[in-house]
Amino acid sequence: MTKTAELTKQLEETLRRANTILFKRGRSILIGMEISALQFNALLTIREFGPLTMGDLGKHLFVACSTATDLADRMERARLVERVRDNKDRRAVRLHLLARGDEALDAVITERQSFIGEVLEDYTDEEYVELLRGLELLARRMELK
Amino acid sequence: MTKTAELTKQLEETLRRANTILFKRGRSILIGMEISALQFNALLTIREFGPLTMGDLGKHLFVACSTATDLADRMERARLVERVRDNKDRRAVRLHLLARGDEALDAVITERQSFIGEVLEDYTDEEYVELLRGLELLARRMELK
Repeated sequence: MTKTAELTKQLEETLRRANTILFKRGRSILIGMEISALQFNALLTIREFGPLTMGDLGKHLFVACSTATDLADRMERARLVERVRDNKDRRAVRLHLLARGDEALDAVITERQSFIGEVLEDYTDEEYVELLRGLELLARRMELK
Repeated sequence: MTKTAELTKQLEETLRRANTILFKRGRSILIGMEISALQFNALLTIREFGPLTMGDLGKHLFVACSTATDLADRMERARLVERVRDNKDRRAVRLHLLARGDEALDAVITERQSFIGEVLEDYTDEEYVELLRGLELLARRMELK
């Protein structure tokens, strides 16, 4: 294995470890609200990209159209989102985030932040500015691919 | 908001962005194999911690006992894991990873690695050694909390 391949492997592992820990922290809140991991990702996507059609949501989450429709049904029943007909294009129906969906996202994110805050207490200013800069660059370069 | 709170917020956001992109990359493989995000996390946990009882799996994933049992049933039907009675403690039943579960994990991880490999092509040696060191430290400190 080349040096680059070895480092790639380590980087993927480390990101996965960090994420598994964060996922577990937020998970108890999602359980309490009966929200699945896929629903949580759907809510995040809608918040990031704005009201989406079922087709767009499916593309973002890499799920089939029928799964996106089923997901939308469940989230609508759980009062996390609602279907709203587009004002400009009357044929299009978009999923809008409802207050309960917004609150679920905020609760999970706040829990994750408070955990990261605890971890960062052990950091010097320089250490975490450096970490943040490294991660920012990584996320930006990933988004450009 | 204090400087630390602002940096904590940014760090959580950046980790989430990086993970969302990686999640999407692996997702198409999971869809093809009809494996849910929760099942994938369960498989990862079993691989990391070894054969687990339903109760231990539930604790790791922060799901109720009934959900862990239901999850185990589905994964067993999908030939991802199998229930095996413990040799030492005959009352305990543990979930063991089957070849198909192992292959699913490998396929997703390989896909993620190849994507990270592409992204790292734009990095200098120093840049990614620094990034890896920063992430390693973060994951280690998270695990200690």
